[in-house]
Amino acid sequence: MDGIFVGIDLGGTNVKIGCFDGKLKLICKTSAATESNMGPDAVVDRIAEATEKLLADNGLSMEAVESIGMGAPGPSILAEGIIIASPNMPSFKNVPLRKMVSERFGRPAVLENDANAACWGEYVLGAGRDVQDMVFFTLGTGIGGGVIINGELVHGFADNAAELGHIIIYPGGRSCGCGQKGCVEAYASANSTAIRATEAIGAGADSSLKKVLEKEGEITCKDVFEHSAAGDELARQITDETAKALAIVCINVLHTTEPKRIVFAGGMIAAGEMLLGRITDFFNEYIWSMKKETVEIAFATLGEDAGIIGAAALAKQAKDGGKRKSD
Amino acid sequence: MDGIFVGIDLGGTNVKIGCFDGKLKLICKTSAATESNMGPDAVVDRIAEATEKLLADNGLSMEAVESIGMGAPGPSILAEGIIIASPNMPSFKNVPLRKMVSERFGRPAVLENDANAACWGEYVLGAGRDVQDMVFFTLGTGIGGGVIINGELVHGFADNAAELGHIIIYPGGRSCGCGQKGCVEAYASANSTAIRATEAIGAGADSSLKKVLEKEGEITCKDVFEHSAAGDELARQITDETAKALAIVCINVLHTTEPKRIVFAGGMIAAGEMLLGRITDFFNEYIWSMKKETVEIAFATLGEDAGIIGAAALAKQAKDGGKRKSD
Repeated sequence: MDGIFVGIDLGGTNVKIGCFDGKLKLICKTSAATESNMGPDAVVDRIAEATEKLLADNGLSMEAVESIGMGAPGPSILAEGIIIASPNMPSFKNVPLRKMVSERFGRPAVLENDANAACWGEYVLGAGRDVQDMVFFTLGTGIGGGVIINGELVHGFADNAAELGHIIIYPGGRSCGCGQKGCVEAYASANSTAIRATEAIGAGADSSLKKVLEKEGEITCKDVFEHSAAGDELARQITDETAKALAIVCINVLHTTEPKRIVFAGGMIAAGEMLLGRITDFFNEYIWSMKKETVEIAFATLGEDAGIIGAAALAKQAKDGGKRKSD
Repeated sequence: MDGIFVGIDLGGTNVKIGCFDGKLKLICKTSAATESNMGPDAVVDRIAEATEKLLADNGLSMEAVESIGMGAPGPSILAEGIIIASPNMPSFKNVPLRKMVSERFGRPAVLENDANAACWGEYVLGAGRDVQDMVFFTLGTGIGGGVIINGELVHGFADNAAELGHIIIYPGGRSCGCGQKGCVEAYASANSTAIRATEAIGAGADSSLKKVLEKEGEITCKDVFEHSAAGDELARQITDETAKALAIVCINVLHTTEPKRIVFAGGMIAAGEMLLGRITDFFNEYIWSMKKETVEIAFATLGEDAGIIGAAALAKQAKDGGKRKSD
């Protein structure tokens, strides 16, 4: 059989691991707790053991693995495979992760930013598989991004391009964890959406979300979307502000790299058409009248597997020496 | 001698024409009124006649011309060399300009967006000559833009990328000529800067600009900058709002394509350090604290010749079949 490509999606809490064939078809996958507090060496060991078990359980061996792709969070020096720092993995400081993984596995490895890896997965096999120019947003606790131009990920001059959650849309506005004010992440992430609802109720707004807050002690973004769908006016307003912020950032990336498709991923897209429809409505309301725009705004299709698929695809691409989609 | 490359910078009012040697050294240049109301055929004739005269006056002939590059305003289909429309040249609608110029001159021609051509000029020989990743803004009546990634102009999927003046920084804010609200162009172009000063005085603000308005009937951006430098408080505030808007858009493009250098061009940069220093101050004040940014914010160095230099460089590049800087 063809060689196998391993895709690893390293997160602060969990690490996902997938084995793919040469056509990027998923053979098997698993996940494990990251336990980053144990330090980088222990994390790499844990990943290697989980991968070896996954391979063995499926009648495969490390010898069949061609190469390993890995998406990881935080600023990195990609050409050298080093993670500079990672807010959710404080023990990872200037860690030569690619070298460590490659040595532990005895196989070539590539490192990519985690949002870029998921973007690449959607580009190769998901919501962007039929386009060459795409912009990607992950809507989760924070907002991550990826930009693809002419079939290539944009890394920027120092590997920190596509930090799209930190595009400022309301200068002087809400404080973001990054130190800026008015970032789209400070309005439209799952956390920010929940926080805005909680604040509004704290300020005396009437809403069916009040009971959730009283009972659960907190409101989640999912609650906001559910109560919006059920007709609660405050939840509808909060949802609209999220959609509006995302529409503005769609307009801004359109006027910068002009993608053919803008793809949203992450837990928030479970809201479905209620959210996508409002983003599109606001986009159409706020976009210029100079020409009719044909950019498509869509939701991701690969779910949580986007990261491992993208990482494996990048491993395969590095081996093939090419840059285009596999087909 | 080496062949000659002609660079043409077509504007709504004037057309600039330059002849360059194979090393992109300017041999001679001229300009003429565009008179676009005469229609595209007449405009092309006028350009050809002016070019023939320029060549003849310098002991050259059209036979020595290798190819012609042209920067022109308005949405275009670049691969086909067609101008779709141009706000300042209403008679130009779906004009196959590249074909017309190529046939009239009897030489190969390439068409580029005017801001992209100027961006390319600064990239090849000006403020961006030592970088590979650059973002470019022209600050004039409006705000144009250009984006270069890995040594290539970003055109977008339909040739309308880098409309950077229409990045929205104040949603729901000032109306822009493009139909959007809150574009950076609606705050920080020369026109918008002058209009904000005029409005503030109309609303009763005290300022030394009042006398200019009474005497001249209008205030220009140059007036605002001069009175700011002379210590007028309103002019200083208006200038700061311009600089702040430009700083915000610098942060936004940094988080999108992460250029090594951001270059501002156009008439407004005559303000010099007073403007550049404030843009840099606001950038440093508003940028995130996640990592220290090393992007450089600089002013263009080629002045009004950037457009013809860039156009000629694109003509040479098309002939050479390469994509990198000539050296």
